[in-house]
Amino acid sequence: MNKWIYAFGGGAADGNSDMRNLLGGKGANLAEMSALGLPVPPGFTLTTEVCNHYTGNGDSYPDELAGQVADALQAVENIIGAKFGDAANPLLVSVRSGSRASMPGMMDTVLNLGLNDETVKGLAAASGDERFAYDSYRRFIQMYGDVVLGVGHHHFEDILALAKEDKDVALDTDLDADDWKAICTEFKDKVEAELGAPFPQDPEDQLWGAIGAVFGSWMNDRAIIYRRLHDIPGDWGTAVNVQSMVFGNMGDQSATGVCFTRNPSTGENAFYGEYLINAQGEDVVAGIRTPMPLTIAEAEAGHSRLPSMEENLPEMFAELSNVREKLERHYKDMQDMEFTVQEGKLWMLQTRGGKRTAKAALKIAVEMVADGLVSREEAIQRIDPLQLDQLLHPTLDPDAPRHVVAKGLPASPGAACGRIAFSASDAEAMTEAGDKVILVRIETSPEDIGGMHAAEGILTTRGGMTSHAAVVARGMGRPCVAGAGDIRVDYRAGTMLTRGQTINAGEIITIDGSRGEVMLGEVKTINPEMIGDFGTLMEWADSVRELGVRTNAETPEDAATAVKFGAEGIGLCRTEHMFFDPARIIHMREMILAGDEDGRRAALAKLLPYQREDFTELFRIMKSLPVTVRLLDPPLNEFLPTSDAELNAVAEAAGADPLEVRARAASLQESNPMLGLRGCRLGIMHPEIYEMQCRAIFEAVALVAKEDGETVSPEVMIPLVSSAQEFDILHELVDRVAAEVSASEGVELDYMTGTMIELPRAALRAGEIAEGAEFFSYGTNDLTQTTFGLSRDDSGSFLDAYQQQNIFEKDPFVTIDQAGVGELVRIATERGRATRPGLKLGICGEHGGDPASIHFCQEAGLDYVSCSPYRVPIARLAAAQAALAGGKVVVDA
Amino acid sequence: MNKWIYAFGGGAADGNSDMRNLLGGKGANLAEMSALGLPVPPGFTLTTEVCNHYTGNGDSYPDELAGQVADALQAVENIIGAKFGDAANPLLVSVRSGSRASMPGMMDTVLNLGLNDETVKGLAAASGDERFAYDSYRRFIQMYGDVVLGVGHHHFEDILALAKEDKDVALDTDLDADDWKAICTEFKDKVEAELGAPFPQDPEDQLWGAIGAVFGSWMNDRAIIYRRLHDIPGDWGTAVNVQSMVFGNMGDQSATGVCFTRNPSTGENAFYGEYLINAQGEDVVAGIRTPMPLTIAEAEAGHSRLPSMEENLPEMFAELSNVREKLERHYKDMQDMEFTVQEGKLWMLQTRGGKRTAKAALKIAVEMVADGLVSREEAIQRIDPLQLDQLLHPTLDPDAPRHVVAKGLPASPGAACGRIAFSASDAEAMTEAGDKVILVRIETSPEDIGGMHAAEGILTTRGGMTSHAAVVARGMGRPCVAGAGDIRVDYRAGTMLTRGQTINAGEIITIDGSRGEVMLGEVKTINPEMIGDFGTLMEWADSVRELGVRTNAETPEDAATAVKFGAEGIGLCRTEHMFFDPARIIHMREMILAGDEDGRRAALAKLLPYQREDFTELFRIMKSLPVTVRLLDPPLNEFLPTSDAELNAVAEAAGADPLEVRARAASLQESNPMLGLRGCRLGIMHPEIYEMQCRAIFEAVALVAKEDGETVSPEVMIPLVSSAQEFDILHELVDRVAAEVSASEGVELDYMTGTMIELPRAALRAGEIAEGAEFFSYGTNDLTQTTFGLSRDDSGSFLDAYQQQNIFEKDPFVTIDQAGVGELVRIATERGRATRPGLKLGICGEHGGDPASIHFCQEAGLDYVSCSPYRVPIARLAAAQAALAGGKVVVDA
Repeated sequence: MNKWIYAFGGGAADGNSDMRNLLGGKGANLAEMSALGLPVPPGFTLTTEVCNHYTGNGDSYPDELAGQVADALQAVENIIGAKFGDAANPLLVSVRSGSRASMPGMMDTVLNLGLNDETVKGLAAASGDERFAYDSYRRFIQMYGDVVLGVGHHHFEDILALAKEDKDVALDTDLDADDWKAICTEFKDKVEAELGAPFPQDPEDQLWGAIGAVFGSWMNDRAIIYRRLHDIPGDWGTAVNVQSMVFGNMGDQSATGVCFTRNPSTGENAFYGEYLINAQGEDVVAGIRTPMPLTIAEAEAGHSRLPSMEENLPEMFAELSNVREKLERHYKDMQDMEFTVQEGKLWMLQTRGGKRTAKAALKIAVEMVADGLVSREEAIQRIDPLQLDQLLHPTLDPDAPRHVVAKGLPASPGAACGRIAFSASDAEAMTEAGDKVILVRIETSPEDIGGMHAAEGILTTRGGMTSHAAVVARGMGRPCVAGAGDIRVDYRAGTMLTRGQTINAGEIITIDGSRGEVMLGEVKTINPEMIGDFGTLMEWADSVRELGVRTNAETPEDAATAVKFGAEGIGLCRTEHMFFDPARIIHMREMILAGDEDGRRAALAKLLPYQREDFTELFRIMKSLPVTVRLLDPPLNEFLPTSDAELNAVAEAAGADPLEVRARAASLQESNPMLGLRGCRLGIMHPEIYEMQCRAIFEAVALVAKEDGETVSPEVMIPLVSSAQEFDILHELVDRVAAEVSASEGVELDYMTGTMIELPRAALRAGEIAEGAEFFSYGTNDLTQTTFGLSRDDSGSFLDAYQQQNIFEKDPFVTIDQAGVGELVRIATERGRATRPGLKLGICGEHGGDPASIHFCQEAGLDYVSCSPYRVPIARLAAAQAALAGGKVVVDA
Repeated sequence: MNKWIYAFGGGAADGNSDMRNLLGGKGANLAEMSALGLPVPPGFTLTTEVCNHYTGNGDSYPDELAGQVADALQAVENIIGAKFGDAANPLLVSVRSGSRASMPGMMDTVLNLGLNDETVKGLAAASGDERFAYDSYRRFIQMYGDVVLGVGHHHFEDILALAKEDKDVALDTDLDADDWKAICTEFKDKVEAELGAPFPQDPEDQLWGAIGAVFGSWMNDRAIIYRRLHDIPGDWGTAVNVQSMVFGNMGDQSATGVCFTRNPSTGENAFYGEYLINAQGEDVVAGIRTPMPLTIAEAEAGHSRLPSMEENLPEMFAELSNVREKLERHYKDMQDMEFTVQEGKLWMLQTRGGKRTAKAALKIAVEMVADGLVSREEAIQRIDPLQLDQLLHPTLDPDAPRHVVAKGLPASPGAACGRIAFSASDAEAMTEAGDKVILVRIETSPEDIGGMHAAEGILTTRGGMTSHAAVVARGMGRPCVAGAGDIRVDYRAGTMLTRGQTINAGEIITIDGSRGEVMLGEVKTINPEMIGDFGTLMEWADSVRELGVRTNAETPEDAATAVKFGAEGIGLCRTEHMFFDPARIIHMREMILAGDEDGRRAALAKLLPYQREDFTELFRIMKSLPVTVRLLDPPLNEFLPTSDAELNAVAEAAGADPLEVRARAASLQESNPMLGLRGCRLGIMHPEIYEMQCRAIFEAVALVAKEDGETVSPEVMIPLVSSAQEFDILHELVDRVAAEVSASEGVELDYMTGTMIELPRAALRAGEIAEGAEFFSYGTNDLTQTTFGLSRDDSGSFLDAYQQQNIFEKDPFVTIDQAGVGELVRIATERGRATRPGLKLGICGEHGGDPASIHFCQEAGLDYVSCSPYRVPIARLAAAQAALAGGKVVVDA
């Protein structure tokens, strides 16, 4: 016989806190607390397996369930000494959801279940408080009516409001027992009127109705959306907890509250919470009455004149403080607890790991290690790497009012405020004039880099989480809201239209890149702090992680930031980003638009000094750390002039006929530039381009060696290789230029030549490619594009719908698709290392900064990950966690 | 000790005709003939392994070679009774290349080697003909000077021309012994003047010089290009044949000629050839003298007054006729032979399988089977499937003069002639007016279909072998020259500029789609013939092949053509091609540009009758044969209106605001449409589109069932699937619509639902996808694009260079890339069949009509291939050959 029910209460429990998957978080912890001897109202948990049975079998239950529920209910009756449905001494229960992961407010709850026209009288008699009894009954009807029967709660609120109006009072507390009695009747009548059937009086019916409603709520829309947003699989299911009711609203010696074992905002080791005298739990959450501080210290710190629980109910507070210590010591983590005091007796209703800010998380982790409560390894595993982001970017003051005028994707975290500029050049000009600027574009292109750098933040109306704007913004640490589709930008008019409102260039807006919100006007921000705990934890992480962490950077600023954040090298220096400076783009265009090799060489000769200078600066910052330089990768048309003025400027600089230049520019347009003449194909068709780049790299190495005495070891990376032949041809080119520079500069050069594995064919042919390649770097952005046949730039129109329909569990451009792209990475790793056992393997796609993907990289046996500078601390922590997890990762399939 | 040398002659030989790879074709057949006892001048072959050693080791030979050559030479001396370098009785030899595959004229040859200032006197004495001796010497100096020493042959021709001028004669035959003597001296002086060293007199030096030159010629440019064009691997190498000289120029009882055992043009079983009295072999080839017919019958048929060999040298002719019979019986194939008669003695210098037209190939094969010479299986394997194409399209008269004004890619075979039209609408109008038209476009798009159909042929200036124009043209059987980059089209002026010449709309051009040539004016064409042998051979092929052969077709014309050519079903019906008719495109555009589902449904309702009618027609033609219908696949922007007039027309038809329509059209533009919102993504985002298509399919099935009594079993194909989830969602849609139609029409529907495997991820996840999918069709066009990260449309700019540099051995869009794309096909096949053992597997990319790819499909275990209608016979034959090859295919890697 399957065990569908786990009982708890009376100092014992069937389950424990390790059974979270089966009992849900709430159920597991109720069992654990009960077994610890803490005062937990007795009850039982219907497991998540019941939920899966329910949703998987047309909303029906396992056969054995009814009997097991009846037995468990009887056990509760025995502990409490009351009887479910008993007119004289009725047992009342709550029915609550409780899933493996916290899904606050997403699913349904029913309280005071077991009340009916008879038992309410028993409750009145037993409690000696008729008003309480009928207030409880009306609350039950209201919740049950709404949650189980589908009678919208506004129906009930209307009745309640009318009753207060009739009596000319403002507060619920002004209503007496008779009023509640009358309201109960009206509520029941309303239910009958709406449903054509009376409100159920049989407590059994009530119970099964509530259980079904809670299980059903697992599949309601908001729960589904919440799960998608929080990566919670639908097959986890929810448990249902049926628990005897306790009441915090039975007079002055009754109370209810929530508390944290430490301050969840700052991490300070101080008891922290709120409570209400004579109230039910929902009143605290609902915010109808202002809750009071738990401790005197809190009251003082908050300048509150309200009496603390410490003063008001000192015995209960002392008992609660004991529970606090006991639970924190037991769970070895900061706890978030719910309690009720019923007529002088403390009951614990819930405990769970408390949500906390990144700052608090670090402080708590470090202090708990100092206190010997947890090990360093445990501390490392406690912190959500993504949460660290909070510490790295300015954020909006959460208490400040927001006038949200549009929403987009939270593309790069942090907040920024400034005047609207609709072009990169305006952004630069306005910044020079001393203004703070938000660059607003339909979408950005590499030519906007200058403006993006000048701006405080970037807002685009098109593109996804991995659009150009998003990637570059994250790399720069600039907040970015991308793909805000509500907004229509009219460049010509210099306006944007959103939700019927026209906003002009120069007006001030604020963007919240962590939430994807756009606000009119300025919203107050809070500056980031780098506190000592952060450094301590990072040190610990570094001591356990096995994966190296590098950064994707090409500017000195980015490189310096990344080194500050602990990057151990550059995993991806995209040389093309160096060409967009106005002084250079003209020569780049000359090069591209030259009709022959001589013309290209002439233009490349002008670019060489710039590129050499770029590498020199970068090498000086990185010193002896490895720097992977990717040779020119994007399609040439990204660099093409668009305006007549630009075309003419190029023609003039090159001494060429403008008409010819125009014709050549047109001939370079491609239908699918991603799949066109780019990457190593450029290197093969026009070797002189890569020759110039290699020369710049090696001459910079020589320069830094001579002037600074640093031994720089660049790793030259050939992009978009699909076959060993391509790689070998260009490998030879790299070696040739290196030999030339080595000879002319009289410097020994220490370098490696490798490739990006970013095409499915490269992954499949990795064995051959590794014969020549000394390292692979997985370019998982492009590999995802080609494996899925899915353009990052064009996926915005359906990616969201795909996630909603569960076709993609996660955005494959954010978290690596292990089942498809991941298999190619594994194949390439296996084949590459079979050929060359010491093959160095890294990842340099956006995934390099994503914790789930980092776990995959650990498990796949990679040597390092590379990510944008602001992701480096996240990657360091995630790598440590991956190492601690022993590289065990469940393959999504 | 390695055997580097294989001797032949004197009725014996070290090698035989099976040793083609080692000895080359010529060497292997000389050995075979010698062993057969035919009169072959003795000699020896340096193997292809010597060549590989030579090219792989800095042009050096194996150590043992010199000794083996000396021994072999001595053996020849013993047979002939003459001595190499002997002043009194010199042995003279020829040095000729001979590779595994025929490469006519690509490599070098030296004749009369062994002559010097001394031996020439011996030759004069031995032959009793001083004129002959010095003529031979000067020929040797000239060839050796040109081929081995690099002294251009024009130097020698100038001297010869001056000598004739001085003597005031026109013909070489007017020069006497003294003249040749003087010319020999002048030739040698010229060599010394050019090289600064005297002409080599030592026969040993001459021999090694010639051997080196022939091996070296394997790597000359024209040989490399020829190999690339004919898919001959560079590592095959060439052999070198050193053979004692015989002379056809020793008087009236001497002759030389080439002959075929059957007529290579018609296949008729009649001796066929040409000869010259008193001439060396090169004279026949060089065309200096008009060769004479071999037989009396030939002379009569050709109205030649020249005496045939049959009349002139009846004994020699009889002997040659014996050789003809012996060789054909021995080789069981039509032979192409070279012979020389020296003073009344016949010598055989070469035999090989003769090149023949497709018509001849079929006739010979069928007749040889009838004669019991070869089996049906052998006959099947003899025919080059691609050669069948000659029989399916009109071709240019090879004897007609051509004024080639541009070259492009031979994109669709056959020839066509017509007036230039620069737009599809012009092409249609001109055709209606009774003109024949060649449609000339920079590139074509689906909207040009009407014009392409109307035109006799298509010429584009951009795009490759698999560009839209090329694919569609092949599908239609229209000749096409694609990517003729010399041509600049100016649509506005209505002109094209090529090689400095301006050609106007309406002028007549001819295109040769088999050779990629564009000619001014009309060139005479020859019409295709479908002779009985063709049908016989196809029947035999069908009896042995295991792969099914279907066609890619969507128009009734194409379907009917394919059925006529033997297609066993439709493997790919691209429904989108049905939407380009002007009556439909407007509704298609309405649908695309509708702002919401209602708008789309309204437009789709207008499209439904058209689509149903399309399918009805198709099903009527195909009867009970399977028809795979692919639901809408391409990005919607392919259908977008471009001109203002079109936009306004759509707005009017839809009753929408033109500005909104324009905005929506703009919003549908994608950066990489290949990787955007297309295929099943459309079906998921806008289910109503696929619903309409499924309804049209199933209603057509019901209609044909009711009216014609045919049981049509459509196979509904969902394109661009990357995950099982996508497939399952749409599978459900198909089933739902089928159930609705089945119920409303009262007809049982028999159909399958499957998918295209055209993304790497689909191949990897095939196991899951096959849980729902009942068939896979490998869409190897897109699979190649995504595996390589290579757009077909954009690959033109570098694909050619890639082939030249041997990065791609073959165009991966023409012949499947077994090492990459092929591995994905194998993975998908294995995983798909593991889930669903009976999974039906086909291929519907362009590769389905490519013989090498068909071999791969056989080996990979596919059930059928699908190709354009005009490829069906080719695929049938290739499939038979693949089956006979036992599915054994060497994997290129």
